[in-house]
Amino acid sequence: MDVSWVEVDPASDFPLNNLPWGVFSPAAAPASGGAPRIGVALGDWVVDVAALAAGLPGALPDVAVAALGAPTLNPLMALGQPAWRATRAALQALLRSRDAAGDKPVNDALHDNAALRDAVLHRRSDVTMHLPATIGDYTDFYSSRAHATNVGTMFRGPDNALMPNWLHLPVGYHGRASSVVVSGTPVRRPVGQVAPAGEGDGGPSLQPCRLLDFELEAAVFVGGPGNPLGEPIAIDDASDALFGVVLMNDWSARDVQKWEYVPLGPFTAKSFATTISPWVVSLDALAPFRVTAPPQDDPSPLPYLVPAGGRTVLDVSLSVGIRGESMAAPATVTESNMRHLYWTFEQQVAHHTVTGCNLRPGDLLATGTISGEGQRARGSLLELSWKGTKEVDLGGGVTRKFLRDGDEVFMGGYCQGDGYRVGFGDCRGVVTPARKV
Amino acid sequence: MDVSWVEVDPASDFPLNNLPWGVFSPAAAPASGGAPRIGVALGDWVVDVAALAAGLPGALPDVAVAALGAPTLNPLMALGQPAWRATRAALQALLRSRDAAGDKPVNDALHDNAALRDAVLHRRSDVTMHLPATIGDYTDFYSSRAHATNVGTMFRGPDNALMPNWLHLPVGYHGRASSVVVSGTPVRRPVGQVAPAGEGDGGPSLQPCRLLDFELEAAVFVGGPGNPLGEPIAIDDASDALFGVVLMNDWSARDVQKWEYVPLGPFTAKSFATTISPWVVSLDALAPFRVTAPPQDDPSPLPYLVPAGGRTVLDVSLSVGIRGESMAAPATVTESNMRHLYWTFEQQVAHHTVTGCNLRPGDLLATGTISGEGQRARGSLLELSWKGTKEVDLGGGVTRKFLRDGDEVFMGGYCQGDGYRVGFGDCRGVVTPARKV
Ligand SMILES: [Ca+2]
Ligand SMILES: [Ca+2]
Ligand SMILES: [Mg+2]
Ligand SMILES: [Mg+2]
Ligand code: NI
Repeated sequence: MDVSWVEVDPASDFPLNNLPWGVFSPAAAPASGGAPRIGVALGDWVVDVAALAAGLPGALPDVAVAALGAPTLNPLMALGQPAWRATRAALQALLRSRDAAGDKPVNDALHDNAALRDAVLHRRSDVTMHLPATIGDYTDFYSSRAHATNVGTMFRGPDNALMPNWLHLPVGYHGRASSVVVSGTPVRRPVGQVAPAGEGDGGPSLQPCRLLDFELEAAVFVGGPGNPLGEPIAIDDASDALFGVVLMNDWSARDVQKWEYVPLGPFTAKSFATTISPWVVSLDALAPFRVTAPPQDDPSPLPYLVPAGGRTVLDVSLSVGIRGESMAAPATVTESNMRHLYWTFEQQVAHHTVTGCNLRPGDLLATGTISGEGQRARGSLLELSWKGTKEVDLGGGVTRKFLRDGDEVFMGGYCQGDGYRVGFGDCRGVVTPARKV
Repeated sequence: MDVSWVEVDPASDFPLNNLPWGVFSPAAAPASGGAPRIGVALGDWVVDVAALAAGLPGALPDVAVAALGAPTLNPLMALGQPAWRATRAALQALLRSRDAAGDKPVNDALHDNAALRDAVLHRRSDVTMHLPATIGDYTDFYSSRAHATNVGTMFRGPDNALMPNWLHLPVGYHGRASSVVVSGTPVRRPVGQVAPAGEGDGGPSLQPCRLLDFELEAAVFVGGPGNPLGEPIAIDDASDALFGVVLMNDWSARDVQKWEYVPLGPFTAKSFATTISPWVVSLDALAPFRVTAPPQDDPSPLPYLVPAGGRTVLDVSLSVGIRGESMAAPATVTESNMRHLYWTFEQQVAHHTVTGCNLRPGDLLATGTISGEGQRARGSLLELSWKGTKEVDLGGGVTRKFLRDGDEVFMGGYCQGDGYRVGFGDCRGVVTPARKV
C-alpha cells in the first residue's frame, strides 16, 4: 500500500491508493467560501484541490488547473485519462509519506507548509457533499445475469427467464438525470398510479407505493471529450471513456413499475430518486482489482462487443444494509460483488454508442442491479423476498418484504488490497413518508 | 392580426402574433460577435434581443434583461410566465406598426433608430440556428390514440391494440437528451444490432438500419423554476410549467427497436438523433388556437389527471414531406393535427411528476407520434406503409416503405388565424449513408 503523512485507518475506504474525486462545501466556511469545490478524500479528510492548486503553483499539472477550479467535475472529466492520471500522481506525491515512499515520487511542499495544510485539509465529517458532476444523461443497464434470471423466473418462469436479446447485447434504457441525488438525501415514498386490484371493473388507483425497493448498482461517469454524434466508440477505445465509479441505489416503486412499464419501459417508477455515493473512484485506483469477466461463449456476442484483450470486471465486494427505525444498526441483507456482471462497462459503452449516440463527460452509466449466485447475493428486495412471498430477516424479530417509512438503506463497496482497501464510502438514504393523497 | 413595421408575408410562419424564441449566431459576425445569442423571429428576420436590450435600456423588463443576454433560453425559461409575457409584450410594442396598432401599445424607439435597427435585425436566411436550450432531460410520451392503436393493431391485432394502461395514464419513457439536434443537422443512418433472421440457430447481426423511420411529434419546453424533488406539479398548475412548443422528428430504427426494446423500452433505436425545430412558439402565441380536447370518459382518468377547467389541445395543422434525391420538391405523405392528442401537455406534466420527479427549465417533453384518423394522417412510415407491407407514393413513380439515403424529411406545422398564421418553421433533416460495418 501507499502511505500518506496524513494518518489513514487501515479499514478506511480512502487510503492514498484510492484518492477518489468529489465535490464538497466546507460546512464552516465563510459565506463566500462555501461554494462547491473539487476535493479528494484521504482517510477522514478531504483535500481541497482547488485551494491546493492555488496555494502551490506548479504542483499540479498545468493542463488540469483550470478544471480543478470548477464547481463540478465535468471539466476535469472532459480532459481525458492522461490528465487524470498526471493529476492523481501529483496529488499522491504531495500527500505521500517520505518515510514510506520507497522509490515513489514525493513532494514535500504541502507537508512542510502548516498554513496551507490547515487551509486545504477539511475533516470529512464537517463537509457537505454534492453531486460530483452535472449529469447530462443517465443510462441504466441490466447487466447482471443472476438478476435478470431471478426477475425473469419470477414473472415468466425458469424456462423463459432471459429474454431472447439478453445474451446478445447489454439491455439498457434511458433513466432520469434530474432525480439523481447524492448519498444522504432523504427519499420520499412516492405516490403513483398502480394497476386495478383485480380482473373486474375496478380502475387503477393513485396511492403511496406499497412495494418500495432498492436496487444495488454501480455506475461509471463518462470521461474524455465524448464521441461526436454518429461516431461510435469502439470496444477497444471504451476504457478511455471511463472516468470513475460510484455506488448507486436505483430506488424502484415495484407496484407503479408493473403497471406502467409495458411497452416503453420504467418511467415514474424510477424517476423519484436515484442515490449515488459522492466519491468517484478512478479506474486507476481500481485497476489492481480487475479480474477476468464471466465467460461469454454461449453465445458469443457480435464482434463489436468483443475486446481484443479479453473482458475484465472489478472485484468489488458489495453489501446492502437496512436499518429500521427501531434498530440500532443496519442489518446486512445482501452481499454481492461487481465481478458478477455479465456485461462490462466497456461493452456498455460500445453498445450504447453503436448506432451513433454521443456520450458526454459527466454522463452516468449504471450497471443495473448486481445480484450474484445464491439467495444472500440478491441485489433487491424484489429478489430477496421473491416478489413479496417471503420475509427478509433483519434480526431481533424485525422482517421486511419491501421498505417501510423510516428505513435507511446503506450500500457499501470495497476492493481488498494487501493491508488496505479501496472503497466507495457511503451510499445511503432514508425513506420518508409519502405525501397525503 | 398584429402588424409590424417590419414587412411580413401573410404566409409567413412568424408574424408579430407569433414572435417565437430561438438561439442564433449571425453568420457574418466578427469572430467575437458570432457567439450564440437569443433572438425572436419576425417574418424573414431575426431580432437580436440581447443587442436590443443593450441598445435600448429600459425597453425590456428589468427582470428579463440578464436572462436575455445568455447563450441559451434556459435562464429565460426559468423566469416563469409573467416575465415571458411581459417581455413578449414589450418586444411586440417595439415592433408594432403605429399605423395599424389601434389601441395596442407602441414603442417607436427601435423603429426610429436606424443604426440600432441595422445592428439588431438579421436576415433569417443568413443566420445559423442552435438548439434553443440545454436540455437537461428529454421525455417522450405516446399520447396519440390513433398512433397507439395503429401500432398495437399491427403487432397484437385490433382486439388488443391498446395496452391496459394506455387509457389510464400518458405512457412515456425517458429519451436521450444528448442526441437532440437542431433542424438541418444531417442524420446518419444508424448501424445497429438486429434480430436473427429466422427461428433457426443464426444469431443477431450488426448492420445498417433497413427500416429507418420518422416520427411526427411536437414537444414542449419546460419553463418556470421547476418543482422540487418529491413535490408533484398539480394538473391545474401544469400550464405554468410550459414555456413553448417545437416540432420534433423522433427518428427511429424500427429493426433495431424491435430487437432491443423488450423489456425496458427503446434505447439505441432512438438515441442516434432527434431533430427539433429551432423556434420555440410560446403558449401565449398558441392560446387563440386552443380547442377542446377529445373526450376522456370511457374510462375517465384518475382525478390527478383531470383539470378543473377542462382539457384543451392545440389546433396545429401538421405535415410531413419527403424529398428523395431525384425529386425537385418534397412530396407530402402525412397531414395530421396536434388536436388529435388524447393526452394533453398538462396531463403529461402532472403524470410525469406524480411520483415526485423534478422537472427543470429546459427539459423537453415530446408528445409521441401524432397520427389522426385515416391513412393520410399517419405520423410515421411504420404506419403509412403498414409495417412495410405497402408502398407509400411520393409521385413520379417514386415510392417508399422506409427512408433511403439522401431522403430529406420535412415537418411543418401552423395555426391558421384570420389572415395570418402562427407557424413553427423548419424541422428537417437529410439521411446520410451509414458508416462502413
Ligand atoms: Ca436499475
Ligand atoms: Ca417517439
Ligand atoms: Mg432511479
Ligand atoms: Mg429520438
Ligand atoms: Ni416606418
